[in-house]
Amino acid sequence: MSRGILITFEGIDGCGKSLIMGMVRDWLADEGYPVLATLEPGGSEFGQAFRKMLLESSFGSLDAQTETLLFMVDRSRHVEEIIRPALLRGEIVLCDRYIDSTLAYQGGGRGLNQEQLRIMNDFAVKGVYPDLTLLLSLREELAASRLGDSKDRLEQESLEFFRRVAAVYAALAAAEPRRFRVIDAGAEPQQVFIQAQTQIRMVLPPRRG
Amino acid sequence: MSRGILITFEGIDGCGKSLIMGMVRDWLADEGYPVLATLEPGGSEFGQAFRKMLLESSFGSLDAQTETLLFMVDRSRHVEEIIRPALLRGEIVLCDRYIDSTLAYQGGGRGLNQEQLRIMNDFAVKGVYPDLTLLLSLREELAASRLGDSKDRLEQESLEFFRRVAAVYAALAAAEPRRFRVIDAGAEPQQVFIQAQTQIRMVLPPRRG
Repeated sequence: MSRGILITFEGIDGCGKSLIMGMVRDWLADEGYPVLATLEPGGSEFGQAFRKMLLESSFGSLDAQTETLLFMVDRSRHVEEIIRPALLRGEIVLCDRYIDSTLAYQGGGRGLNQEQLRIMNDFAVKGVYPDLTLLLSLREELAASRLGDSKDRLEQESLEFFRRVAAVYAALAAAEPRRFRVIDAGAEPQQVFIQAQTQIRMVLPPRRG
Repeated sequence: MSRGILITFEGIDGCGKSLIMGMVRDWLADEGYPVLATLEPGGSEFGQAFRKMLLESSFGSLDAQTETLLFMVDRSRHVEEIIRPALLRGEIVLCDRYIDSTLAYQGGGRGLNQEQLRIMNDFAVKGVYPDLTLLLSLREELAASRLGDSKDRLEQESLEFFRRVAAVYAALAAAEPRRFRVIDAGAEPQQVFIQAQTQIRMVLPPRRG
């Protein structure tokens, strides 16, 4: 079976994940790798409605369990529709948020039981785990100041909420040092990108052609 | 805290749950009890879209995990929006399908891991468990013949699928004899209703007024 590589990008809102992931995507494509960039929530067609529902809270305030389960639906479908097919085609899949976001946000931020969340993650991903996870680490105050006024529902949480999220991210990275690489996201984008490149080169397969 | 009673109705498609539940609702209302009849999937406003999505498969064929997680979203919201508020008002809540349907259909029918399903059920219901569960038991062949041609997506499964569902229901009832009451649903509706009445009377609170 041809098997690609799944690289996930994690970190608190405002850490610059999306920008860096875009730079990584362009670099890999320039290098001739087949690359797919996607995101959660909302990476699959099925997930678009959920992303809208979750982030714009069109159904009013959701309880933490319902919110979590919606993320899980989105993840399950995303794996089935997008991520696994791309990996089977041998592509490098870059995903903005994945299983660790649930543990950090719903576990750390909302205080839900980590063990239940892990079991639901396992159920949703059906064996598709990241080969590498880049954690973009940034002080909460700096992340908040970067976001400014353009915050969606999740981003409107308190600084204390983001401290709890960041603490879980740090613990996850410490528990799985082989999979996680922590990157200082306080630097200039070009410097952050270079750190990301260094980590990603270690897991790249030989180039085609 | 005022606390109502949650009675769930379970059984394979075609067993006559909905008809009997309607008769029970009318009877309890006539007797002066505050009663709320609801169903899964789709009992909450939020769940309507999911019910449509699930039963009409407007997104094409869903994998078993995504299907299960959609049911869980529906259940979580249903508890939050409908069931728990009614119980807090002291009402008798009748629910057509609940946690046991997941164990029977996704566990027995689709072959998913029962322990994972139990943990997701616990997560979704947030402590709201049935006081009484009526299992309407009926041979699969008879249930299928009752359904005739008016089958939705789930009901189009094979007879073998429904045998597995029925086997899990029987095992659940045997494992929790205090909560479950098995009713012979092969009889005439009036006879089935009388069996249901007998069981429900045992859990009814003294009437108001």
